Amino acid sequence: MTKKPKTAISPTRNEDYPEWYQQVIRAADMAEKSPVRGCMVIKPWGYAIWENIVRGLDDLFRATGVKNAYFPLFIPLSFLEKEAEHVEGFAKECAVVSHHRLEQGENGLVPAGPLQEPLVVRPTSETIIGDAFSKWITSYRDLPLLINQWANVVRWEMRTRIFLRTSEFLWQEGHTAHATEGEAEERTRQMLDIYAQFVEESLAIPVIKGVKSRSETFPGAVQTQCIEAMMQDRKALQAGTSHFLGQNFARASGIKFQTREEKEEYAWTTSWGVSTRLIGGLIMTHSDDDGLVLPPRVASAHVVLLPIYRKPDDQAAVMDYTEKLARRLRALRYHDRPLTVEMDTREIGGARGWEWVKKGIPLRVEIGPRDIRSNSVFVGRRDSGKKESISTDQFVADICGILDEIQTNLFQKALDFRQTHTKTLDDRDTLYDFFTPENAGRPEIHGGFVQAPWCGSDQCEAVLKTDLSVTIRCIPFDSEPTTGSCICCGSAANQQVILAKAY
Amino acid sequence: MTKKPKTAISPTRNEDYPEWYQQVIRAADMAEKSPVRGCMVIKPWGYAIWENIVRGLDDLFRATGVKNAYFPLFIPLSFLEKEAEHVEGFAKECAVVSHHRLEQGENGLVPAGPLQEPLVVRPTSETIIGDAFSKWITSYRDLPLLINQWANVVRWEMRTRIFLRTSEFLWQEGHTAHATEGEAEERTRQMLDIYAQFVEESLAIPVIKGVKSRSETFPGAVQTQCIEAMMQDRKALQAGTSHFLGQNFARASGIKFQTREEKEEYAWTTSWGVSTRLIGGLIMTHSDDDGLVLPPRVASAHVVLLPIYRKPDDQAAVMDYTEKLARRLRALRYHDRPLTVEMDTREIGGARGWEWVKKGIPLRVEIGPRDIRSNSVFVGRRDSGKKESISTDQFVADICGILDEIQTNLFQKALDFRQTHTKTLDDRDTLYDFFTPENAGRPEIHGGFVQAPWCGSDQCEAVLKTDLSVTIRCIPFDSEPTTGSCICCGSAANQQVILAKAY
Repeated sequence: MTKKPKTAISPTRNEDYPEWYQQVIRAADMAEKSPVRGCMVIKPWGYAIWENIVRGLDDLFRATGVKNAYFPLFIPLSFLEKEAEHVEGFAKECAVVSHHRLEQGENGLVPAGPLQEPLVVRPTSETIIGDAFSKWITSYRDLPLLINQWANVVRWEMRTRIFLRTSEFLWQEGHTAHATEGEAEERTRQMLDIYAQFVEESLAIPVIKGVKSRSETFPGAVQTQCIEAMMQDRKALQAGTSHFLGQNFARASGIKFQTREEKEEYAWTTSWGVSTRLIGGLIMTHSDDDGLVLPPRVASAHVVLLPIYRKPDDQAAVMDYTEKLARRLRALRYHDRPLTVEMDTREIGGARGWEWVKKGIPLRVEIGPRDIRSNSVFVGRRDSGKKESISTDQFVADICGILDEIQTNLFQKALDFRQTHTKTLDDRDTLYDFFTPENAGRPEIHGGFVQAPWCGSDQCEAVLKTDLSVTIRCIPFDSEPTTGSCICCGSAANQQVILAKAY
Repeated sequence: MTKKPKTAISPTRNEDYPEWYQQVIRAADMAEKSPVRGCMVIKPWGYAIWENIVRGLDDLFRATGVKNAYFPLFIPLSFLEKEAEHVEGFAKECAVVSHHRLEQGENGLVPAGPLQEPLVVRPTSETIIGDAFSKWITSYRDLPLLINQWANVVRWEMRTRIFLRTSEFLWQEGHTAHATEGEAEERTRQMLDIYAQFVEESLAIPVIKGVKSRSETFPGAVQTQCIEAMMQDRKALQAGTSHFLGQNFARASGIKFQTREEKEEYAWTTSWGVSTRLIGGLIMTHSDDDGLVLPPRVASAHVVLLPIYRKPDDQAAVMDYTEKLARRLRALRYHDRPLTVEMDTREIGGARGWEWVKKGIPLRVEIGPRDIRSNSVFVGRRDSGKKESISTDQFVADICGILDEIQTNLFQKALDFRQTHTKTLDDRDTLYDFFTPENAGRPEIHGGFVQAPWCGSDQCEAVLKTDLSVTIRCIPFDSEPTTGSCICCGSAANQQVILAKAY
């Protein structure tokens, strides 16, 4: 009998995946629950990832002509009511501001100054941005209008999980208006492609691009496009969405323009967003039973230097060597941002190294008296666990290459995992087996993504949801037209869809 | 009689300063009022300035060891009550969230799901960050803790003015905890110095650094330090504050730590912030009767290229030349960010040039067939109004130098203005004349900053406020100890203060 290997995170992924997730976040010191129900505190190690996501995406948006702006946190109640489906989708779970003052009551402060019209804390800004667009746009010359906002939004959630589902979260929402349907459709896809590119290249998370079914479409949209990723529990995570809104929101908000031919028309609009949820996806894609694993392109820091000495006599030489190395490394750039170097000089022995493993930093570098004598450093990689002695000059010359190798490695590992756990099925019984909880302990026959033919009916979709808690994640862009039978009802299918349990 | 010169902005600064301010913002397309009372929409041309402020300050913070984090938008009512002065200062003007759902009523949506404890939309995050600090800090090893947050905050304002006073605004709030009083005091001053450096170097606004009087101190703080700037109507604008909080907030929030000697002590804390108000200060410092004037270091864009041609035959050559120049310019960096180049190809003739004047872009470059033949460009400077033909190669080589010259020029002009309108007075009658509205049209004897001796009593401060609407802006750090008499009551003064009307 082999002994169970000791891991830094308990429980392990296999033992209790949801609890493992929480423990990874805690051990890496990324975020925590706040005293306000459903809201999180994002701590520096977690927030730095968000800052890198913001910087990376913002550059990509900007390169396509998008400009940033900022709209009010509050939305008048009447605005939410403008688009019928939209109010259905969002009015249920809103923070409602009813008063604008506090007064001393008998038992402390009490709300005072009731508002004539209550305000809603934005769950999304479609309606208030729509109102602005209706004033900004008068002529075809004002189009396209390409606006993005980085902001906090609030959706009152009953069951929350840090980064994945919180009452308040950070996101960006892009909103564009166009003179033609075709141009708006093109923009919808362009932004989805940017999301896919960024999530794959920078977060090292492979995604499937496709279209949502009618029932999963954004309230009020004509079409919702999405990117879907597979987590290590083989459930899907929707990592980003891009909506083609047709003229629905333009009609609701009165976004009209005069065409070149002097006719008045409603604009064609889109909206698209990603959120701090991406950090949850990153954690669940790459981390292991020793904690967080960070892809270098968005890592909170790239490398930590750990000076090691036992004898006080060695301290000065080791510290000096470490500081010189830090300076050399900090002068480097990795993918257009300065290489981020942590230096941990705490005298807490081996615990120090483990802390950095749990924090998922791509590279740990130990520097002791013997290393200095041989002018080398002892480098540990978080992705492979490999440790080796490298000449210091070589390490400085190679570090960006090593980081790129880690980035590629993480992506490939995640892609292999997804491919291993994606099945093409056309038979209802096998599908039911695949998603039956009793088989949960047998990954060879259970759980993951299923590609299957679907007849297109809401009813079959509903049946699968009720029976298996499985949803149509998307109709992939690259799926071939099919002539098979619907995996649910057996009637003629017209498309292949991705089925999975999801976050 | 000379004809009144035609200006792009009406009214002019002299005719109606507050209205001129609004018109500058409108003409530059920076921001506008929103349908939500007291909230603003920050449009791309205004928001880009904020993004440049964020980037610039963030780098300076980071270099001193500060890390960014994010805390919840909502604060439980009970938290606000923890610090007695603090609740006094902030509870009066809060957005109160009382419900978490909307339901269809007879006449539309109505709030539902009342909250057990109402939540307040953060007017500042002292209390909720204090709560986090109380959990994060247990030992002297956890100190100093240096945290900053970029966020939106809400203070319900009755009279609002875009950028200067709005119900919602964007800001940063830094919060630090230290093991010793001295270290916290040092940090308070360090951050004020960073604000002063940034505001002077990047916004080109000269500031006076000093300490607030007791009555102007942040509610709950031991000391508030500030930077004060003079606007073109000679009123003061508080451009940033840094608070030494002593152990007040640590005591209120229970931020305790074990010292090296294993004693338990309260931490010493600071907080410091600047906001989108800085944009208001920038507008009021530099702009003129033709509209906005942007300091290059934070300008939304640095240069606009305006291709000019009358004959269709010239179009291809002019456009080609312009695009080549744009590419060369975009490859340059100005103070560590890419040079931002706008290209305006609209066929709207002379109106186009005026639009860019009103938008305050530092440099306008006209390119016509004749310029191409001489391989030169016609460059207009927004600061001096100077226009000249420069060889294209020379322009590309010199542009960063020209921008620096504009930056220096704007700062110097603002400094001269402030010095011209700052008087050292020690006589009560002259002071009253200086601030009497009847003299408002006579800048030679009226309005600006007054440096005067003060006895230190709240009463004299209150008298000046009531009689003249004048406040003590600060006790400058560099003011000499004084042996004169208080300008208000005539008794012995112990300090020189800056008096002014203020925003």
